[in-house]
Amino acid sequence: MTLLYLSTPERIAVWAPLLAEAGEDMVVGEEAVTDPAAITHIACWMPPRDLSRYPNLKTVISVGAGVDQMPPLPEGVALSRTIAPGIEEMVRDWVVMASLMLHRDMPRYLEQAGRGEWVTHHARLARTCRAGIMGMGRIGRLAAQSLAALGFPVAGWSRSGAPVEGLEVFAADTLGDFLARTDLLICLLPLTDETRGLLNAPLFAQLPRGARLVHAGRGPQLDMEALRAALDDGRLSAAMLDVTDPEPLPADHWAWHDPRIVVTPHVASHTDPEEGARHVLAVMRASREGRPIPGLVDPGRGY
Amino acid sequence: MTLLYLSTPERIAVWAPLLAEAGEDMVVGEEAVTDPAAITHIACWMPPRDLSRYPNLKTVISVGAGVDQMPPLPEGVALSRTIAPGIEEMVRDWVVMASLMLHRDMPRYLEQAGRGEWVTHHARLARTCRAGIMGMGRIGRLAAQSLAALGFPVAGWSRSGAPVEGLEVFAADTLGDFLARTDLLICLLPLTDETRGLLNAPLFAQLPRGARLVHAGRGPQLDMEALRAALDDGRLSAAMLDVTDPEPLPADHWAWHDPRIVVTPHVASHTDPEEGARHVLAVMRASREGRPIPGLVDPGRGY
Ligand SMILES: NC(=O)c1ccc[n+]([C@@H]2O[C@H](COP(=O)([O-])OP(=O)(O)OC[C@H]3O[C@@H](n4cnc5c(N)ncnc54)[C@H](OP(=O)(O)O)[C@@H]3O)[C@@H](O)[C@H]2O)c1
Ligand SMILES: NC(=O)c1ccc[n+]([C@@H]2O[C@H](COP(=O)([O-])OP(=O)(O)OC[C@H]3O[C@@H](n4cnc5c(N)ncnc54)[C@H](OP(=O)(O)O)[C@@H]3O)[C@@H](O)[C@H]2O)c1
Repeated sequence: MTLLYLSTPERIAVWAPLLAEAGEDMVVGEEAVTDPAAITHIACWMPPRDLSRYPNLKTVISVGAGVDQMPPLPEGVALSRTIAPGIEEMVRDWVVMASLMLHRDMPRYLEQAGRGEWVTHHARLARTCRAGIMGMGRIGRLAAQSLAALGFPVAGWSRSGAPVEGLEVFAADTLGDFLARTDLLICLLPLTDETRGLLNAPLFAQLPRGARLVHAGRGPQLDMEALRAALDDGRLSAAMLDVTDPEPLPADHWAWHDPRIVVTPHVASHTDPEEGARHVLAVMRASREGRPIPGLVDPGRGY
Repeated sequence: MTLLYLSTPERIAVWAPLLAEAGEDMVVGEEAVTDPAAITHIACWMPPRDLSRYPNLKTVISVGAGVDQMPPLPEGVALSRTIAPGIEEMVRDWVVMASLMLHRDMPRYLEQAGRGEWVTHHARLARTCRAGIMGMGRIGRLAAQSLAALGFPVAGWSRSGAPVEGLEVFAADTLGDFLARTDLLICLLPLTDETRGLLNAPLFAQLPRGARLVHAGRGPQLDMEALRAALDDGRLSAAMLDVTDPEPLPADHWAWHDPRIVVTPHVASHTDPEEGARHVLAVMRASREGRPIPGLVDPGRGY
């Protein structure tokens, strides 16, 4: 059982001692592979193009929380995405920040500040702003908890509508009801064929007028032109985007300069190298012991 | 027992029915006072200049959370400041937002966004950033709770150092120890002779290099020029100010245009008229029944 790791020198420096300590073999970079048949696991953001070179490959492990960048894997090779409390907490923190920024009119105050304008607008209580989270997974549930603790009335929306304690969760087929009660829409969905382009004009039209959007899922879920149109006609009033389409957002893209939008360059989270290595060790251990693989992705659902 | 209320028409419209319902007499505006001897309570931001006109005045009630705007009151007249959960929650929300914005490098990302620059910086976990709250009163304790729930290691500093469950609280004479362990300094102090100018160069010098400042107390607590110098020499790395000196901040003030500073125009909270009226009713009731006045200010301490 050997791990092939494709990464940067600084991450490798953290992983090497952790794998050694756990007694796992690691090869760094494809050039260093002398016996392809020994490779059972590959940890990477993007796998090597030709995986047929590794006849005993069991699992490809995405070093990020998402797997939408992954090509289809050969029959029999499992896909795992990194499960790391650090990633989840960081995204949660960004979402709480973005939600409060929109709720408390930061885009407007930032625009005024640019002109040196001291003009106040009515401050509102969190309890008057219904937050709705699309994606009730590991991160969505964490964000829901923090926003509810601040007093936001929170509901969730997920494929299954699986219950979450203390929260109303809408199932996929009740999207309209979920949107109609949502003043602050937060997207924390994985990118799949079903969620690509989901944040579009017909969806925005089902939100209360003046709703706000926090987007920390994946760029291609959002139709940026539909966002602009919804802002122009008052359907939406402001947005915070950590992910955009395309990425990176070109310097001359209108969204950078639209005062109703605040863009951050996909920085809601960052995989801590130590947490990443621990996830891979957990996958290798589970694989050796025939237990369920942590972070296993269902190829049918795509997440 | 009659209340003299000095306020705006929209607030008066909310107060009038609430006082009537409670069976309390209210006069609106000094011009409407026909019998000055009947006036026992005055609710206002600024009291009338000549209070000797009201021989039976018992209490002046500040309609805000602070009383630093109040002149000295005549002997025997008590001062109460509005206690309202809404004010406290709103300031807490602003402080959580500001703390996350500084922790997650928003001033830098906002500056980059102005240039359309997609450049990422290392995201950090809340648990790596020690927050320190100056002022462990009603608002400070609430903010401490929320920041701790997000994972920030939180400590407080107060005059008495009175213990708060689950938190280390430093007393006034251990300010140096408190500052030395504080990466994110949050000011929620009342303005008094002792706190005026407290956020100055000698204080900043005791913080770890690169510390950040969230200021939601009162403008004159902060020496703005010392802030600029501390930012210039790297002692501080960024600041969010809801209060400034002077207020309003003039349009051509350098702080509006310093990319390391985000200013909001004193909007962390807003007294809900209904909550304000309920506080006054509670004061009048306590006064009639000879019980302690809610929100009573100690004239010696000044808060
Ligand atoms: N901006 C960033 O830096 C950053 C960082 C990390 C993650 N992310 C994004 O956050 C996403 C969520 O992460 P996670 O760890 O919370 O994922 P997760 O635990 O896999 O949860 C995914 C959630 O989305 C729901 N879902 C999936 N497809 C759906 C559909 N078609 N309709 C309705 N609901 C659907 C799932 O519903 P069920 O509960 O019914 O399965 C589940 O609740 C990631 O995939 C990634 O896109 C962004
Ligand atoms: N930006 C805004 O919109 C906004 C809105 C509302 C309030 N505020 C500000 O927030 C302040 C705090 O409100 P609050 O309701 O939490 O007040 P509070 O309940 O009266 O608490 C005041 C706290 O400050 C501490 N303190 C006072 N003087 C001190 C000194 N010289 N040295 C050290 N600690 C001192 C007190 O210590 P002890 O516990 O030992 O007494 C107490 O912990 C207000 O006075 C106001 O300035 C701002």
